[in-house]
Amino acid sequence: MKRKVAILGATGIVGQRFIELLQNHPWFEISVLAASEKSAGKKYKDACDWKLTSPMPSEIGEMTVAASDLRSVESAGDVDFVFSAIPGDTASAIEEQFAAKYPVISKASAHRGDADVPLIIPEVNPDHLALIPIQKKKRGWSGYITTDPNCSTTQLAISLKPLMKFGLKSVMVSTMQALSGAGYPGVASMDIIDNVLPFIKNEEEKIETESTKVLGAFNHGAISKAPIRLSASCSRVNVSDGHTESVFVGLEQNPEIDEITREFEKFRGLPQELKLPSAPEHPIVVRRENDRPQPKCDRDCGNGMSVVLGRIRKDPVMTVKYTCLGHNTVRGAAGGSILHAELLAKKGYLD
Amino acid sequence: MKRKVAILGATGIVGQRFIELLQNHPWFEISVLAASEKSAGKKYKDACDWKLTSPMPSEIGEMTVAASDLRSVESAGDVDFVFSAIPGDTASAIEEQFAAKYPVISKASAHRGDADVPLIIPEVNPDHLALIPIQKKKRGWSGYITTDPNCSTTQLAISLKPLMKFGLKSVMVSTMQALSGAGYPGVASMDIIDNVLPFIKNEEEKIETESTKVLGAFNHGAISKAPIRLSASCSRVNVSDGHTESVFVGLEQNPEIDEITREFEKFRGLPQELKLPSAPEHPIVVRRENDRPQPKCDRDCGNGMSVVLGRIRKDPVMTVKYTCLGHNTVRGAAGGSILHAELLAKKGYLD
Amino acid sequence: MKRKVAILGATGIVGQRFIELLQNHPWFEISVLAASEKSAGKKYKDACDWKLTSPMPSEIGEMTVAASDLRSVESAGDVDFVFSAIPGDTASAIEEQFAAKYPVISKASAHRGDADVPLIIPEVNPDHLALIPIQKKKRGWSGYITTDPNCSTTQLAISLKPLMKFGLKSVMVSTMQALSGAGYPGVASMDIIDNVLPFIKNEEEKIETESTKVLGAFNHGAISKAPIRLSASCSRVNVSDGHTESVFVGLEQNPEIDEITREFEKFRGLPQELKLPSAPEHPIVVRRENDRPQPKCDRDCGNGMSVVLGRIRKDPVMTVKYTCLGHNTVRGAAGGSILHAELLAKKGYLD
Amino acid sequence: MKRKVAILGATGIVGQRFIELLQNHPWFEISVLAASEKSAGKKYKDACDWKLTSPMPSEIGEMTVAASDLRSVESAGDVDFVFSAIPGDTASAIEEQFAAKYPVISKASAHRGDADVPLIIPEVNPDHLALIPIQKKKRGWSGYITTDPNCSTTQLAISLKPLMKFGLKSVMVSTMQALSGAGYPGVASMDIIDNVLPFIKNEEEKIETESTKVLGAFNHGAISKAPIRLSASCSRVNVSDGHTESVFVGLEQNPEIDEITREFEKFRGLPQELKLPSAPEHPIVVRRENDRPQPKCDRDCGNGMSVVLGRIRKDPVMTVKYTCLGHNTVRGAAGGSILHAELLAKKGYLD
Repeated sequence: MKRKVAILGATGIVGQRFIELLQNHPWFEISVLAASEKSAGKKYKDACDWKLTSPMPSEIGEMTVAASDLRSVESAGDVDFVFSAIPGDTASAIEEQFAAKYPVISKASAHRGDADVPLIIPEVNPDHLALIPIQKKKRGWSGYITTDPNCSTTQLAISLKPLMKFGLKSVMVSTMQALSGAGYPGVASMDIIDNVLPFIKNEEEKIETESTKVLGAFNHGAISKAPIRLSASCSRVNVSDGHTESVFVGLEQNPEIDEITREFEKFRGLPQELKLPSAPEHPIVVRRENDRPQPKCDRDCGNGMSVVLGRIRKDPVMTVKYTCLGHNTVRGAAGGSILHAELLAKKGYLD
Repeated sequence: MKRKVAILGATGIVGQRFIELLQNHPWFEISVLAASEKSAGKKYKDACDWKLTSPMPSEIGEMTVAASDLRSVESAGDVDFVFSAIPGDTASAIEEQFAAKYPVISKASAHRGDADVPLIIPEVNPDHLALIPIQKKKRGWSGYITTDPNCSTTQLAISLKPLMKFGLKSVMVSTMQALSGAGYPGVASMDIIDNVLPFIKNEEEKIETESTKVLGAFNHGAISKAPIRLSASCSRVNVSDGHTESVFVGLEQNPEIDEITREFEKFRGLPQELKLPSAPEHPIVVRRENDRPQPKCDRDCGNGMSVVLGRIRKDPVMTVKYTCLGHNTVRGAAGGSILHAELLAKKGYLD
Repeated sequence: MKRKVAILGATGIVGQRFIELLQNHPWFEISVLAASEKSAGKKYKDACDWKLTSPMPSEIGEMTVAASDLRSVESAGDVDFVFSAIPGDTASAIEEQFAAKYPVISKASAHRGDADVPLIIPEVNPDHLALIPIQKKKRGWSGYITTDPNCSTTQLAISLKPLMKFGLKSVMVSTMQALSGAGYPGVASMDIIDNVLPFIKNEEEKIETESTKVLGAFNHGAISKAPIRLSASCSRVNVSDGHTESVFVGLEQNPEIDEITREFEKFRGLPQELKLPSAPEHPIVVRRENDRPQPKCDRDCGNGMSVVLGRIRKDPVMTVKYTCLGHNTVRGAAGGSILHAELLAKKGYLD
Repeated sequence: MKRKVAILGATGIVGQRFIELLQNHPWFEISVLAASEKSAGKKYKDACDWKLTSPMPSEIGEMTVAASDLRSVESAGDVDFVFSAIPGDTASAIEEQFAAKYPVISKASAHRGDADVPLIIPEVNPDHLALIPIQKKKRGWSGYITTDPNCSTTQLAISLKPLMKFGLKSVMVSTMQALSGAGYPGVASMDIIDNVLPFIKNEEEKIETESTKVLGAFNHGAISKAPIRLSASCSRVNVSDGHTESVFVGLEQNPEIDEITREFEKFRGLPQELKLPSAPEHPIVVRRENDRPQPKCDRDCGNGMSVVLGRIRKDPVMTVKYTCLGHNTVRGAAGGSILHAELLAKKGYLD
């Protein structure tokens, strides 16, 4: 018996990725697709402007879209837990409504900063799930909310985790982010042809604040932020999928590049140990060619779940610099959430 | 009477920009176009694959291309001085041959590091031209070589100059560079469509070494490198012209953003004071919109000679961060060289 | 004294081109900028998302946008005539309201098909302006409506006009149209990166019906459609400005390619004869290189007002085939309308 | 026991597709990779600039590249037959050398026009393979040469085949072709950014001549060309893979669009009947949305082996028009050749 999942925000780009990645999932099956009022009541194929190159599964297309409220979703089908890909400001209240009753795994930014809400990358900080019972008790909920970081944070934090053993002090990152990160229709074509857009709203703040929570320690029932100073500068480039990041890192120790590279390559997390269905064999893949990673060539590495690093080299100002690439709508969104849900399932949080 | 100039490497992208920018120049006129053996003897219009959107001037098209040696060039026309846009490894010896007799203003990297060769940005370090008589004496030449920095260094160094008063300590820069920087044919279209290339050969080294020379002090007949630590990470993006740079700067002082912005905006150099023909009114233009500068919108600012800055903001790790944009084949190449030559002319170095 | 013009739809892409092209116009000056309710009352610089690479003129930015109704426009400034770039369905009634009192030169499709409304390309069918007094009388208006064709029709019809002497029978055209033709935000970047969109709503119908009206004869107070069979297939490609068309033409006669080329090159119209300010010297420019015209290189030919043809060659099925390029927002929109207005002024229709 | 194949031109884009598509092939295995002198003797991974997004198979990377002559290839491994993806002018003699001994299936254009050489699309004209014994006898070869059409011809001819029952008279086609069709490095990025290139050398001639041979009849030991008039106009657009064609067709009969659509959809060929491993279930897939096919969404249909049609509609000048899309390096190159080889194997031509 597979667990039944409702997807909130099912018609957006991230919602579409959830559908694609949950096809034939061994543990989960989609029971409800929910979206905004203007889509509710329509067949999914009529409500959704499908943007993935893989075709929309035909049985999904025939499902009727529910409105994004508890009553509508429950009327539409059985629910064991909820994925939320609700855009922007409306997420907060809707997610709370569902969390009173069900586990909600959220890609929205609304609750990421809440002290009692975990912000999880399964390979990085699975111990933060211990916030869940604290949250349930405090809020008096039968369910709970657990969140995933922003896409550009996710791949960065995965790359930083193995460096913590060398004393991670400071991080500078300059991103070159893909168009799909802005949703659909997102960036107008006239704005990006022959161009770079050197601004993504709230993105730098998200990287700078979320990273320290994800990399923080869980002690005495609370997360203490990691004592790392971060600075981000975020740009949009003419790439469909896959964020590229130039990362500069200051460490307390001064390890050799070979040693750092080995740490990256041998890095494994709990998902690998537990052999979760969506866990990539290698959370980090290191490319040794001098011109990799590249979004077109490397975004699908590990089915889009591996973060690909390259150009690992000494930094004349800090300690080490490298290029970091991840698939923003797979590892950085739907794929990350599904791995997160698999971890919850395995650890008993969906029972 | 205009001064007569020979252009070496006249058929390349930078050579083409020289031709475009020297049309109707008040002080200089093109007398000889020189290029490699395979072009020599052909009409320019037959030897050159013209890549600019402005049309090739028709009288230029009819000129016969000379070979890039002293005898061929002198046979082809009168020469008062020389612009060199010779690519790569062959530049060194050819430039020396000409420098024995003529002033050579070079865009090639061959001699930039020589202790007795100036590396000039006219607004930044015009005092370094004092190396010229030292060089001539040391090498026994009637002429001399003076060089321009790499394109990505030029715009960065212009932006850093006004920050020196605050005690410039360290600079991190991540570039998103245009296709024209690779020359023609340069980057294959299949390599850049829906992609970012996170590597440009030798580019990071050039930024890291050239910047400290340009920003260095001339004392007792020699340049002492500026005591700045720099780190660069260079990528190629799908943009025709205009390099975008995410810059992070550490200063000794901690000035307010307004104060920094004022320094950028009031910055003027010797070219502005001397009212040189190619000097932009504002070497630095600051945009206050949160999504500027952008290469498509801002590369032609000041006829491509202004560096455009935006998103000037506090940096959580260093002191200040901003986005820096410049036209790589105008300010960063042919336009910079022409301004350099105008400065030489005005200061008597072409007499 | 310059004539005062109100621009309806002033905040859109075509409205922006009107503003750019009317700067320093010798005969016309902008007195009112009108747009939809959500822009009305704002300063133009706050209401408009300026998309041209040339900067917004600062005095234009300070103008207050009027609503698009007669009373609001008249309150905002003096009006001698009106340019309408109103998108879509709303144009019809608004234009009629203004036409009761003023000459309205419209880029909207609403009235193009009306039997008593001229559909004008100044070089092609200036005699159709004779419909104006007929229209005024019939509709009881002090003003009138005169229209410009769709952008892809305009450049095609200009290229077809000189072929009419050979007996124009049939035309097949496959277009590769620019992004700016869809307005802003228009085409989503995710839809066009690494892609072609083989459909543009209503575009084929417009080409097929408008061309026969433009090329038709004015006799006995009415336009008779040209007896030409046309078929169009329209696609969107990843180009910012400039529509490229593959054209195949069937003629009654079988002229040599040289003869056809000569007809293209010697083609002049009334705007050239009258030396109208916006008239290009050559309405048609022929390129002889085998890989031209190209949108990036040729769209600005004749300040964007020349149609550029190339690859003129025998057609194995019909008679001749060629590639036709025009700037869709200059010749195909604002520039065409301004030339149209200049013709009206010169012929006394604005008095 | 799998048949052993040598690939000539193994380092190019088409050679790479052969390698990708032959991984785990049930009937064939790669025994020799051959390329030009400058690659010969190197490991494949060192000789090849791998451009596919799927990774190079590691055991392929370790193979040593042979020179493209019979002796070198035979020294390198066992050979049952040969795929030739040799570019341009050098193909002719090399292929003849191999054909004296082995079956050669060629993507090169050198021998396509030879009267005794089949030009095969397996679904369209498998009966033309009857030329093989005639060729062998005439040329005194133990092997033979059989060829595939040009990529843009292949997808067009597949779409035309089902229309022949309505009396195919004339075809106009305007192509929008992908970058990969030009090989690597092929089109320079500066030439295609924000641009269309309206010329592809020899492409129009290939479409116009090859189509009539492919669609011709085999009678009395020879191919008689199909009595169809064709005209092509070919452009390059900024798309990585997948050629889009606007097709206009004149038929003797005047069938309804529904009838035509049914013919397209029910079309099957010998490869489907024989259930060849690379045969797509549907050689032609019809999309009913008004904006399909699109290269990004549809090129991988049927593993890149299906031709996707859409926008099938009445043509005002001819009879019917539609948009035709195919994967140029799969169906139009390596995939087509492999299907061709499978047909040869099944029919006993490789024994």
